[in-house]
Amino acid sequence: MRIVTSVRGMQRLARRWRRGGPRVALVPTMGYLHAGHLSLVKLARRKAGRNGRVVVSIYVNPAQFGPGEDFARYPRDLARDKKHCRAAGVDVLFVPPDREMYPDSQNEAFSTFVVEHRLSRGLEGASRPAHFKGVTTVVAKLFNIILPDLAVFGAKDFQQAAVIQQMVRDLNIPVKITVAPIVREADGLALSSRNAYLSPAERRQAVVLRQAIQLAQKKVAASRRFLPASRLRGELIRFIQRQPAARVDYVEFFDPKNLEPVRQVARGVQMALAVFLGKTRLIDNARL
Amino acid sequence: MRIVTSVRGMQRLARRWRRGGPRVALVPTMGYLHAGHLSLVKLARRKAGRNGRVVVSIYVNPAQFGPGEDFARYPRDLARDKKHCRAAGVDVLFVPPDREMYPDSQNEAFSTFVVEHRLSRGLEGASRPAHFKGVTTVVAKLFNIILPDLAVFGAKDFQQAAVIQQMVRDLNIPVKITVAPIVREADGLALSSRNAYLSPAERRQAVVLRQAIQLAQKKVAASRRFLPASRLRGELIRFIQRQPAARVDYVEFFDPKNLEPVRQVARGVQMALAVFLGKTRLIDNARL
Repeated sequence: MRIVTSVRGMQRLARRWRRGGPRVALVPTMGYLHAGHLSLVKLARRKAGRNGRVVVSIYVNPAQFGPGEDFARYPRDLARDKKHCRAAGVDVLFVPPDREMYPDSQNEAFSTFVVEHRLSRGLEGASRPAHFKGVTTVVAKLFNIILPDLAVFGAKDFQQAAVIQQMVRDLNIPVKITVAPIVREADGLALSSRNAYLSPAERRQAVVLRQAIQLAQKKVAASRRFLPASRLRGELIRFIQRQPAARVDYVEFFDPKNLEPVRQVARGVQMALAVFLGKTRLIDNARL
Repeated sequence: MRIVTSVRGMQRLARRWRRGGPRVALVPTMGYLHAGHLSLVKLARRKAGRNGRVVVSIYVNPAQFGPGEDFARYPRDLARDKKHCRAAGVDVLFVPPDREMYPDSQNEAFSTFVVEHRLSRGLEGASRPAHFKGVTTVVAKLFNIILPDLAVFGAKDFQQAAVIQQMVRDLNIPVKITVAPIVREADGLALSSRNAYLSPAERRQAVVLRQAIQLAQKKVAASRRFLPASRLRGELIRFIQRQPAARVDYVEFFDPKNLEPVRQVARGVQMALAVFLGKTRLIDNARL
């Protein structure tokens, strides 16, 4: 496995691959890899094919964190990430420092952003105002640096995947996007690098996100009519906040295609939620 | 010469070239080609090399015109443009209709833009608020569709070239940008498709943009000290508005590297101006 830290070095490699013709698959991550990431790598490996190349990027992108969010304390463990990637058959690990991604000399202050205006408004975008501008910008940069044929994103960040797909379509980016299913712990908690923040008590209560989804699924399956979204939301919020460490940020029901909120919930509607467990903000989502 | 109108068709061709390895040079235009454009094509031809491919795109991009600007009446003559391109040895003419560039079905309304915040604020950006957002977005799209190794822009749109170069640097777009010098009529008027709007009287007076630049150059050359920008601007505005059809939009003096306005004008400072001749808005610029 090769480790590349400079944009120029990565771009040189990417251009060489482009001439030669192997399929290149990218898994963009912020590191602190868990089994969820590794399922993306596995899928990337399969999609790239026997002669393909799999690149994992690890970059905790400051531009997608708001003030007061967890950028500084976001967990990092490059040594362990390297081991995981090596074991997973990753060909190149791209780990750029900030000065490579956002060079900032006097005449060249970074000033160009990719913004998506429609799908990134609600949900995470409402709670984290500049978040998706940071995401779309860094993903566009990674695509230009690594020149992948395809990229794999996780379904836990449902809205992120939708925004990235919209960006790719609108800007005609020649990268195929694949979205891989959520990987969960045995008790149902969706894997996340942020789970590392949880105290043992918070960890036990964190399963409530998944339980709230299952409760909604059960109610939708049992109902022969539409359920008013506002009523279902109220029930779920009460259910979640029975856990003493839990504070709901949002529970939303929406059309999975355009992310528009729905007033009536039925089978096929997408549900997403964000819940604080103590200071740790977790998200989850599912089709109902 | 091949004419391609679909994004998919152009992207297929671009990917094939990418495998094969010829250098691809792009000249993005809004059509109604004149000798200025053809000088860009010639440069693109030389830079692409003997086995290279030259693509000219013709697209009057609605996103870069403001309300009340000349989008609807912008001059178009595809038959003549084709002849010019064929004669200039262009390999592919990419002429997409609007529905290819900005598809707009219910769940896929166009919503992603590339925005540059620093260099695009002043000058044209101040007079035409959403202009550069439209330019950077469509150029990013054209780069992703045509996958050129290099692209050639004209120096008449000095700020546009600076903004594009900033975008390419910030987003790590793997395209080399070349800026080609302004081509002028015998009397000094910079070539522009918009010159076609001018009445004979306006056409005669339009030479005043170039004359104002020359006046500034003479004053700078003659002065042994810095010239206050505000005084020089005042003199030039008076000089220009002696022409009855002329109304100055702006005359600016700035650092060519970061486009920051300067208070003192000296050799090496960039000057740019925008002047209405009747209803037609013309621009020009030069290093002093």
